[in-house]
Amino acid sequence: MAVAAGLRALGAKGSGWLRRDPWAPLTTGFCSGGRPGSGGRSRGRDPPSRGSGTASGQRPAWPKRRNALSLAMLKSLQSDILHEAESQDLKVIIISVSDCLSSLSFLFSTGNFAAEGPVFSSGHDLKGLTDEQGPDYHAEVMMLIQNHPVPIIAMVSGLATAAGCQLVASCDTAVASDTSSFATPGVNSGLFCSTPAAALGRAVPRKVALEMLFTGEPISAQEALLHGLLSRVVPEEWREEETMRIARKVASLSQPVLSLGKAAFYWQLAQDLRTAYHLTSQTMVNNLGLPDGQEGVKAFLQKRKPVWSH
Amino acid sequence: MAVAAGLRALGAKGSGWLRRDPWAPLTTGFCSGGRPGSGGRSRGRDPPSRGSGTASGQRPAWPKRRNALSLAMLKSLQSDILHEAESQDLKVIIISVSDCLSSLSFLFSTGNFAAEGPVFSSGHDLKGLTDEQGPDYHAEVMMLIQNHPVPIIAMVSGLATAAGCQLVASCDTAVASDTSSFATPGVNSGLFCSTPAAALGRAVPRKVALEMLFTGEPISAQEALLHGLLSRVVPEEWREEETMRIARKVASLSQPVLSLGKAAFYWQLAQDLRTAYHLTSQTMVNNLGLPDGQEGVKAFLQKRKPVWSH
Amino acid sequence: MAVAAGLRALGAKGSGWLRRDPWAPLTTGFCSGGRPGSGGRSRGRDPPSRGSGTASGQRPAWPKRRNALSLAMLKSLQSDILHEAESQDLKVIIISVSDCLSSLSFLFSTGNFAAEGPVFSSGHDLKGLTDEQGPDYHAEVMMLIQNHPVPIIAMVSGLATAAGCQLVASCDTAVASDTSSFATPGVNSGLFCSTPAAALGRAVPRKVALEMLFTGEPISAQEALLHGLLSRVVPEEWREEETMRIARKVASLSQPVLSLGKAAFYWQLAQDLRTAYHLTSQTMVNNLGLPDGQEGVKAFLQKRKPVWSH
Repeated sequence: MAVAAGLRALGAKGSGWLRRDPWAPLTTGFCSGGRPGSGGRSRGRDPPSRGSGTASGQRPAWPKRRNALSLAMLKSLQSDILHEAESQDLKVIIISVSDCLSSLSFLFSTGNFAAEGPVFSSGHDLKGLTDEQGPDYHAEVMMLIQNHPVPIIAMVSGLATAAGCQLVASCDTAVASDTSSFATPGVNSGLFCSTPAAALGRAVPRKVALEMLFTGEPISAQEALLHGLLSRVVPEEWREEETMRIARKVASLSQPVLSLGKAAFYWQLAQDLRTAYHLTSQTMVNNLGLPDGQEGVKAFLQKRKPVWSH
Repeated sequence: MAVAAGLRALGAKGSGWLRRDPWAPLTTGFCSGGRPGSGGRSRGRDPPSRGSGTASGQRPAWPKRRNALSLAMLKSLQSDILHEAESQDLKVIIISVSDCLSSLSFLFSTGNFAAEGPVFSSGHDLKGLTDEQGPDYHAEVMMLIQNHPVPIIAMVSGLATAAGCQLVASCDTAVASDTSSFATPGVNSGLFCSTPAAALGRAVPRKVALEMLFTGEPISAQEALLHGLLSRVVPEEWREEETMRIARKVASLSQPVLSLGKAAFYWQLAQDLRTAYHLTSQTMVNNLGLPDGQEGVKAFLQKRKPVWSH
Repeated sequence: MAVAAGLRALGAKGSGWLRRDPWAPLTTGFCSGGRPGSGGRSRGRDPPSRGSGTASGQRPAWPKRRNALSLAMLKSLQSDILHEAESQDLKVIIISVSDCLSSLSFLFSTGNFAAEGPVFSSGHDLKGLTDEQGPDYHAEVMMLIQNHPVPIIAMVSGLATAAGCQLVASCDTAVASDTSSFATPGVNSGLFCSTPAAALGRAVPRKVALEMLFTGEPISAQEALLHGLLSRVVPEEWREEETMRIARKVASLSQPVLSLGKAAFYWQLAQDLRTAYHLTSQTMVNNLGLPDGQEGVKAFLQKRKPVWSH
């Protein structure tokens, strides 16, 4: 039951959001199958240029410190995300999910990355799991991703297990390296991954989810893509590059428009089709009422690039 | 936000349905990424024989004229489909969806195609989108496909964007050429494709839908097949052939049986499993009560081909 | 409309469950496309060793007798499954689904297989289908699979049609040989596969389900995997081996934990996300309260293999 995750927030300016003390170190984690030795990312290779390369000076340093995804940490994460949601400058959040001994970080930027927050890596803190509040906090954080006003992208390498797998399943979209894998191994330790199953069962076909949950065995990145847990798989050396390419594209668009659209998407998906169309038709009308909606239409007619006021 | 579509209705006899004046020409459309030069279909190659070839005399000419998918047009399309639903001779509708500068046509036949209707191609009429009624009419037309008593097949080539992508997502099944692609690029113009998202989000996994909606970037035919937006991908030169093969197979079956089954399918899908089984068990009983249900069982027992009374 | 199925129950001890007279012979079946000559499984090849080989003495003999899946049989099957659900020794059920002239068997074991029950093969009994109770009983048996406390694995070879396809769609997970295929051919005989559609429509994307239902044509094992009807496809000679490997892994885990998890999985899947997380958070707490949950955590902390009390 390992989660190792990094959070990057791509916005218009830096913030004091993540300027806090390092969190408590890893104590006891459920981590089966992680590759501790490979937790640190290779820095020797530069991603090949694909037409949207990041200047090396713009590429953020990735997290190095490791702390447990304890209940206290989940609470911090939750309040951080909630606090940041109010920032109009925030454009995209990238959650980096890696092996058991990988890490979680918060980064911030103006166009490019500008700020970097504290980092941690983890397996679940057993105390967090055995605490009655533990599972509920996990659920709150996972739902927060869906309810957050900016797109949240998972970037995966290595093995994402249990809450790590749940985190990937909960993100809006997910990019993974072709060597990554995904498992819900709780049954091996007598704890069925029931809360991860809520996210997993909504991301992949029922038979795939149940085979993962019943056996605890991992599926490959290709299988995860095939079954809908990922939206994109790339070679490990392109993982950061490809994720940043998507993040930059998203960050170049109107934030209020994306925010309106994201909320409408999840809202309508839970309704019957007629209600879904009623809701989204109204969303189209509201979208046209936004300054950036008006600007987009004007720019289209005038055959020029739109200038968003956000 | 382009839709370019062709409607073919495969039935037992022709009709006056489509005998109307050509619609108004294309005015203003959201069309990003379409390939105007390739809108006309290649006529130089014949599809290779695959055991179910159409005699060349039977193959309909494909649409050449182009008009906007305006609000007025949607209303026409809606009333046409509604009117034709009453025809007992109608067996299959094929909606051809192509590049921005492609076209929409209605064809009719006795066994083979017999009648051909007016054609158009389009991007969305901006007036239609900015009109408060616009999105609602889109929704009505899309739901009509699901509520229509005959199977409706999308046949796709080129780039299907926005409402075109929504149209493909809304059809019962969809055949596409391997060079086709699919996008919801509204965000580029400040208009999130919210109504297309209602159809798209029910056809492909959430992560795939959101990446398309957040970035506006296209997915390939193979990705669309992988993720459930299509039921079949074939080389471009087999597209018409394969679509017609499926259409003819469907047209050879009992229309009342297909109609009963299609309605039950969508109905039960929105229910919990117990209710779904209760509904479909009753449908089986009703099916056996149909003349064609009785004939099918009799023919099976007598080891002969059934003769449908429809 | 053929179903040919075999049931294997992998448990801790044998039972008298399946010790009954052979059922009535096949009378009238809807069987299109089955390969009668290949119904008997090849015994000449041993599966290649993949590190988890079954000793040849442990591999059960597969069923040879054939009987119809009549209404009476469904009732027997239902009461058998219900009766066996009370056994604390039962760990896994394997339902073998094959060609029209294949068979159904019940096996039991202590660790390995220990008991084998009567076998049958079938197409639907027309009487069962025309009987008003027929479809309801089919539905009851299919829902029983989902409500059963142990994991139920489909093992498929050959062509699984109609109720056979429904059976595969209804199982928790499904392993199939790469030469197997899946169809709902009822429309050919004037009977739309409406009850199979309830299971199929919940396993594969809507467009794939409707193309199968509208045309009656089969999809391949690879397509079935691609679309979520299967969780695993292997070469025919590895089919038993791979299925048994999964079954043994599942049988090595805590039965009460799997049972709790399986019930929670289906329960939460029908709820909105918030309710789903509320339910599964409570399930995590309940899981920790089980003796095997406590043992699993203890064993993890003590870095030893857990010993389940079940």
